[in-house]
Amino acid sequence: MKIAKIQTHDGKSSYAMVEETDYCLIAGDIFDGIKVTKQRIPHSAAKLLAPVQPPQVVAVGLNYRAHAKESNMPVPSAPVVFIKTCNTVVGPGDAIVLPSMAPSEVDYEAELVIVIGKKAKNVSETDALSYVLGYTCGNDVSARDCQLRLDKQWARGKCFDTFAPIGPWIETELDGDACDIRLVLSGQEVQHSNTSDMVFNCRQLVSYLSHCMTLYPGSIIMSGTPSGVGMGRKPPLWLKHGDTATVCIAGIGSLTNPVVKEE
Amino acid sequence: MKIAKIQTHDGKSSYAMVEETDYCLIAGDIFDGIKVTKQRIPHSAAKLLAPVQPPQVVAVGLNYRAHAKESNMPVPSAPVVFIKTCNTVVGPGDAIVLPSMAPSEVDYEAELVIVIGKKAKNVSETDALSYVLGYTCGNDVSARDCQLRLDKQWARGKCFDTFAPIGPWIETELDGDACDIRLVLSGQEVQHSNTSDMVFNCRQLVSYLSHCMTLYPGSIIMSGTPSGVGMGRKPPLWLKHGDTATVCIAGIGSLTNPVVKEE
Repeated sequence: MKIAKIQTHDGKSSYAMVEETDYCLIAGDIFDGIKVTKQRIPHSAAKLLAPVQPPQVVAVGLNYRAHAKESNMPVPSAPVVFIKTCNTVVGPGDAIVLPSMAPSEVDYEAELVIVIGKKAKNVSETDALSYVLGYTCGNDVSARDCQLRLDKQWARGKCFDTFAPIGPWIETELDGDACDIRLVLSGQEVQHSNTSDMVFNCRQLVSYLSHCMTLYPGSIIMSGTPSGVGMGRKPPLWLKHGDTATVCIAGIGSLTNPVVKEE
Repeated sequence: MKIAKIQTHDGKSSYAMVEETDYCLIAGDIFDGIKVTKQRIPHSAAKLLAPVQPPQVVAVGLNYRAHAKESNMPVPSAPVVFIKTCNTVVGPGDAIVLPSMAPSEVDYEAELVIVIGKKAKNVSETDALSYVLGYTCGNDVSARDCQLRLDKQWARGKCFDTFAPIGPWIETELDGDACDIRLVLSGQEVQHSNTSDMVFNCRQLVSYLSHCMTLYPGSIIMSGTPSGVGMGRKPPLWLKHGDTATVCIAGIGSLTNPVVKEE
């Protein structure tokens, strides 16, 4: 099932099951059982929002071997954990804003996003996927100058407003460890891999992180990016005003965001 | 004014103004104007909770010269930003839990906590304090093995459950840049300084961080810790089961938390 969060023209938002031409509204929240109603809204009458407003955005770095190599970093022996703040989260079609503080080296990262469905603390790898509601697409946007050259901690470079587009919806029936994943930047394919290349797979990430912290319903795990990011290219390929970044994950769909400079 | 979040014996929580023997209940939230009601509850009839459930916990490191020195790190030329997740926040009297994953090198850090009162984005240093609701005490607990030896990023070592006790309440009338600050561990004073020793003062922190991200009402900034932390001692002084950690900030009050190992 594909679960979207939609906003109708009257400004109201709701969860909905995605069908070919319509959204079927879901009653209430999605973390206490999903109750699909008979109320239908055509796609044209609603806008997609970020599918969750996550209480925690936990991300892992260097989780594809080829990306660790292009970053001149060793393949990690445990997940490299970092945190993004709630102000980073935007939805499909929302702008990625190049921040005035650091507009010049902003980079894309296509990522499979794991959406937690129920409170998870110290769960085993065997049980881990039963705590997952589903998966969506994400773009872990980074200001590389802040992340890698100016600061030793990645926090600032990863936490500018709009730096975590997610969507277009949550797919609940998916093998997260075998998905074709691509990023298309203004018409050019710049990343293409498969989540089977992840160093730590979905059940390993959920289990490991649940030993670091209680994961809450609606929290997300951004599972790392394949090679092909802008900083690994010669010359580097930075996001610029007017670009369009699309993350495509087979079995989920596409997440497209325009890039604009801060006003 | 001292604003507490209290829970009465029937399980209901509410904001309240703190008086000598009573709490005076506040109607609704505290971010749209504070309406103190005539309803009074004696201190003995309620428990103090964490004064906010922050949408963002933004912390800065190495913000006292003597602490940078004991950490063998240079005094920073810009705030060293890192993020704590929502699962870290607990209130007065709640346990600091030594996590099973990393129980052996858990350290205390007394900190002045700045509580944001209204949405702040790109605010000047001159205007910064008008976005601050008030101040509370905090303990930025850290698993030093994860933070400094095992991981390059500080996220895991800073984000274990219960690693950000805050409280006992928010003081709205305080000069945050001239506060005596101490940490008493099981009866022994281990940190003692004044927030006037901060490398970046409160208005500088709020302004700088508001250029990195939109700060939301209820978000908190943990403003760094003075020297005297456990890792800087010979031999190191780690938190152990049975300890009691008390952060005292003159003009605010005291935040006390017992230390227990994870069950």
